[in-house]
Amino acid sequence: MSIIYMLIPTPKEDLIVVKIGGNVIDNDESLNAFLRDFSKITSKKILVHGGGKIATEIASRLGIEAVMVEGRRVTDKAMLDIVTMVYGGLINKNIVAKLQALGNDALGLSGADGNSILCMKRPVKEVDYGFVGDVKDVNNAFISKVLDIGMIPVMSPLSHDGAGNMLNINADTVATTLSKAMSKNYNVTLLYCFELKGVLSDFENKDSVIPKLNYNSYQDLKQKGVISKGMIPKMDNSFDAIKNGVSIVVICHSDNMLMASRGIETGTVLA
Amino acid sequence: MSIIYMLIPTPKEDLIVVKIGGNVIDNDESLNAFLRDFSKITSKKILVHGGGKIATEIASRLGIEAVMVEGRRVTDKAMLDIVTMVYGGLINKNIVAKLQALGNDALGLSGADGNSILCMKRPVKEVDYGFVGDVKDVNNAFISKVLDIGMIPVMSPLSHDGAGNMLNINADTVATTLSKAMSKNYNVTLLYCFELKGVLSDFENKDSVIPKLNYNSYQDLKQKGVISKGMIPKMDNSFDAIKNGVSIVVICHSDNMLMASRGIETGTVLA
Repeated sequence: MSIIYMLIPTPKEDLIVVKIGGNVIDNDESLNAFLRDFSKITSKKILVHGGGKIATEIASRLGIEAVMVEGRRVTDKAMLDIVTMVYGGLINKNIVAKLQALGNDALGLSGADGNSILCMKRPVKEVDYGFVGDVKDVNNAFISKVLDIGMIPVMSPLSHDGAGNMLNINADTVATTLSKAMSKNYNVTLLYCFELKGVLSDFENKDSVIPKLNYNSYQDLKQKGVISKGMIPKMDNSFDAIKNGVSIVVICHSDNMLMASRGIETGTVLA
Repeated sequence: MSIIYMLIPTPKEDLIVVKIGGNVIDNDESLNAFLRDFSKITSKKILVHGGGKIATEIASRLGIEAVMVEGRRVTDKAMLDIVTMVYGGLINKNIVAKLQALGNDALGLSGADGNSILCMKRPVKEVDYGFVGDVKDVNNAFISKVLDIGMIPVMSPLSHDGAGNMLNINADTVATTLSKAMSKNYNVTLLYCFELKGVLSDFENKDSVIPKLNYNSYQDLKQKGVISKGMIPKMDNSFDAIKNGVSIVVICHSDNMLMASRGIETGTVLA
């Protein structure tokens, strides 16, 4: 008689990374409703927030004009200070205070805090984007420690260059990069929440949600022009996440985030 | 023959709490020099920063006037948003980024983050101070965890009310309250750094530093009018800290902070 050994890998713990954009942040009522839902997620979780219109509004009130080069927004020093104030201060701290009131032990972070996301200033090629960062490294050990002591990281779309300067980063990129890095230790679900019900097959029909997409069907729809400009970076980010260890990405309306977090089919599921 | 047992208490670990004010923050060169010094402190440490003139300047550029009632500044909602942006975002994140560049693993916090400092809105008596908080509770368990995972807390003078609202708090009060709470687990030295060499016996002579003060000699000098208006809240805070477990308080010039942190006599030592 012989004994058969089986090596069963320990299942990874679940981690849900939720990204919300400006449409939720700009409206106090939607933000409160969203945070109430977010507070009900019982697994480990991370919230990544974007910027919203407040930064642009404050910049314009301060007489700082958005600098555009070849149709792309440039972050000069004045604008960097504005986003550091608005994203890292106003938006981040208010979300943290609201989550605390909902019994969620939130911890507001920028990429500089705990060196959680290290960036390099985007190299100047055709366009000098100014103080904009490309992610170099995610400190998943630090984020794991934060989760382990029972905290909920709330990430603003800001980082640093390791040389003492803050940098502006794209919130979608933060969500993707963080999810990829955390998938080494966690079973990560990434939820992109926005103002639409999902990826649409007909932009004129807000209900024409494509329920499921894989990389091949996405390429196909992209080629046919069904998936258009605005969605392409988000989709590319999402499939990059899946290719790099993230279990599921769901693109859904922020009102349906809680359903998505519970595995109930809503929005567009990418796998 | 009998055996005699002796209970020797484990010595507490050292913790240095440093408070810097506006004079250091408002000048990039002084801030950099100060942070270089701060980065050299090898024991566990916490940095508490004040506000500086930037908030007032940005408020005035946004057309928001400081509201004064009976000679006291009032924090209305517009001003609360400004201080949340400037203290919690601009100042806090830039200090964190600079400390990271100096090899110090800094973590920027407001009182809302990790519920580190819970406040209540100051009750309205003769004056309604608006969104100003009085400290109700310091979460020293959370701060200890942050220190234990090797992080350096950088505290902005902001807190929350536990009901979802941010509150403006006095940075000196943050430093004192934090020091008192942490003294349960640590041997705390509190360093108040400002633009003078210490507590002066003659305000006209910037070198007339009183090297040592205890509570009785302070009361005596206060009665004689030697210690004047501006210093009284700082001194009252300091002696309150000492009465409540803080080992030493030093009031010194920010240039001499590193010396003070090493126990070299500088400024005014209160014990």
